[in-house]
Amino acid sequence: MGEQEKKNRPHVVIVGAGFGGVRVARGLAKADVDITLIDRHNYHLFQPLLYQVATAGLSVDDIAYPVRAIFKEQKNVNFRMAEVTGLDHDSKCVLTNTGRICYDHLVVAVGGATNYFGMEGVETYGFGMKNLDEAVSIRNHVLKMFELASHEPDIDKRRAMLTFVVVGGGPTGVESAGALSELIYHVLDHEYHNLNFKEARIALVEASDKLLASMPQELQEATLETLIRKRVEIRLCVQVTDYDGQRMTLKGGEVIPTHTLIWAAGVRSVPLLDKLGLEQASMRRAVVNEFLQATGKPEVFVIGDAAHFVQDGRPLPMIAPVAIQQAAHVAKSIKGLLKGKAITEQKPFAYKDVGNMATIGRNAAVVHVGSIKIKGFWAWAFWSLVHILRLIDFRNKMVVFMKWMWDYFVYERVVRIITRQ
Amino acid sequence: MGEQEKKNRPHVVIVGAGFGGVRVARGLAKADVDITLIDRHNYHLFQPLLYQVATAGLSVDDIAYPVRAIFKEQKNVNFRMAEVTGLDHDSKCVLTNTGRICYDHLVVAVGGATNYFGMEGVETYGFGMKNLDEAVSIRNHVLKMFELASHEPDIDKRRAMLTFVVVGGGPTGVESAGALSELIYHVLDHEYHNLNFKEARIALVEASDKLLASMPQELQEATLETLIRKRVEIRLCVQVTDYDGQRMTLKGGEVIPTHTLIWAAGVRSVPLLDKLGLEQASMRRAVVNEFLQATGKPEVFVIGDAAHFVQDGRPLPMIAPVAIQQAAHVAKSIKGLLKGKAITEQKPFAYKDVGNMATIGRNAAVVHVGSIKIKGFWAWAFWSLVHILRLIDFRNKMVVFMKWMWDYFVYERVVRIITRQ
Repeated sequence: MGEQEKKNRPHVVIVGAGFGGVRVARGLAKADVDITLIDRHNYHLFQPLLYQVATAGLSVDDIAYPVRAIFKEQKNVNFRMAEVTGLDHDSKCVLTNTGRICYDHLVVAVGGATNYFGMEGVETYGFGMKNLDEAVSIRNHVLKMFELASHEPDIDKRRAMLTFVVVGGGPTGVESAGALSELIYHVLDHEYHNLNFKEARIALVEASDKLLASMPQELQEATLETLIRKRVEIRLCVQVTDYDGQRMTLKGGEVIPTHTLIWAAGVRSVPLLDKLGLEQASMRRAVVNEFLQATGKPEVFVIGDAAHFVQDGRPLPMIAPVAIQQAAHVAKSIKGLLKGKAITEQKPFAYKDVGNMATIGRNAAVVHVGSIKIKGFWAWAFWSLVHILRLIDFRNKMVVFMKWMWDYFVYERVVRIITRQ
Repeated sequence: MGEQEKKNRPHVVIVGAGFGGVRVARGLAKADVDITLIDRHNYHLFQPLLYQVATAGLSVDDIAYPVRAIFKEQKNVNFRMAEVTGLDHDSKCVLTNTGRICYDHLVVAVGGATNYFGMEGVETYGFGMKNLDEAVSIRNHVLKMFELASHEPDIDKRRAMLTFVVVGGGPTGVESAGALSELIYHVLDHEYHNLNFKEARIALVEASDKLLASMPQELQEATLETLIRKRVEIRLCVQVTDYDGQRMTLKGGEVIPTHTLIWAAGVRSVPLLDKLGLEQASMRRAVVNEFLQATGKPEVFVIGDAAHFVQDGRPLPMIAPVAIQQAAHVAKSIKGLLKGKAITEQKPFAYKDVGNMATIGRNAAVVHVGSIKIKGFWAWAFWSLVHILRLIDFRNKMVVFMKWMWDYFVYERVVRIITRQ
């Protein structure tokens, strides 16, 4: 059975089937190795569109794709759906809830999770947006608030139900706030015949004095203006101090009554990484050297959100392009090692910035690539194209493209069922 | 707020947003009434394709459509997402978990549920297939069985994991068994590189001596042959007596080790109907007169699976066409009553048989309409067309059509993610 029948080929174990893990396995398609790819889910998630699931634009199945389908033709990959519980570095084995899986080379690509910075109230009552469960919970919750508000006679209670706060002015926060605005003012608006949509409120709260901090100032301002036009209240230089599910408290004492706090203000590596016996740095990411090897563990590569790789004096950001480039690099390194080329004879990793983009809604996005800055319709068209091309298989591309066209022309979102909670 | 602002127009309350409830509300689009449509879910479910969700052919969102979107343009409909808990017949009010809703005319269209005929083991460990949660549970479970089997070293345990039993030889059972066969032998087959698919087994168990009892014999036999060609083991004249989650016992003592029993062998009205204080008959359906009024309650109409309507000496079957025709009839009756035409002056209801069909898989279906009997590819094409036309909105139609074409030409099913259980 699978990884047991080793035929003496080197065994590469990859933990995590995100952007990084999947690309390492693909990069080793023609290598003379056996690969075991482990994930606790049976699907690969296209995280950049998660916010569209949360705001009822896309189905779960549009952005989640079975891992086995990806590797249908690649016979050297054996998928294992399992929960990793730890590493045994001495015997070089991954410990899982379905048994031990031993490796010659290990790639840790476990990804990131929401960082609440120890704020327990926010963690308990707020919503993160890093995985499918969280995105579906947001969708269910937002739709439920409208259902409750539609027959709530008390205006204050109704206003609290219809107040949606997004915390964090990065791409996830901006995209979520924009998408929420379109869901509420263009779709739900037509369907709740008794509700006064003047009672609805969307606020985007950011601790610093800017949105999309990594963008040029010109695009930051365009983002701000677009969101304001979309009736999103922007609160800059404001910090959240507490939340109890009903009332959000800001530094300085201001209180906003709301049942919905979406927390997009921080990321960290997944908690699993804490159990793997690797040296960790800020955001609890594993420290790696210039070859992406964990400290003191040359047979363990760490990539993506899980890796603390310092370049130009700063750790690389937790974004998909970093994971993708590191994955390609590690696949090459492993192939080099198989050919007897020591890691120190190989090229160290260096990240090439591919630019930045964020969509704010219909016809509105900002794109920054090299010296090119675009905003508005063409940025939106470019953003849509790039994301569709990146989606893994033809069918998902077609379905997503069709849904987007439909939304574009008909202003409708159909993915609005409230599932079991 | 909604149903409170009555303007003295008669208030029609409809419980259930299935085929029946939705069509009553639509039929009253131009009537001078206020309508409150109550359902515990915020979506209308296209039940005939539920088995395709269970077998990973379609997404949840493809067959579930928000009720509010259906009535976006129909301003006299007010939707209320609520759990009905009872009726107060004296004051003519529906009791819900969100308050009382009083009516002048009530339509009970609460639908059907799985009937386990008191077999507790089957109810606890088996899977029904009457609602979205059940269908998603089946999908998750079947896929999980393959994941577990892929690293299970014990052959007997593996065989039990890979044995799938469908009980009930009606359309749901036949369609499920056929779809399971295609999922397993055409899709999963290519993805579990270590599994021997000779160990897999699909059995369809039926207590009588025929499949699709309401079809002409010629089509019954075609169905049987097609299923056998699809490697479904057909067990006729066999009754299930017990199931404990591991072992299914048949009358006579035969035991089949299996972790998956899909129960499609019985329907009844939903348990909610038992709480409504209406006279009930077989399958716990509410007894209605020739005008679809509940016994002794002229202001309460009951339609669809919930109604025990006797025609030609037998109660009408629990199928969508009955609900749809009864809904149209009740909408007309209510319009007549509004014009002062007593119910006894109106035409009694009579069901017109629209024929029968079932699909067994790719290129294979059976259709019986009037004296026309078709099987094979053209029956399958006809079945596909009818179901696509019936799906409520354009977008769903297009997405479903595209997915079917994709499955047809590429033999793939993408809707295979295992969601949280």
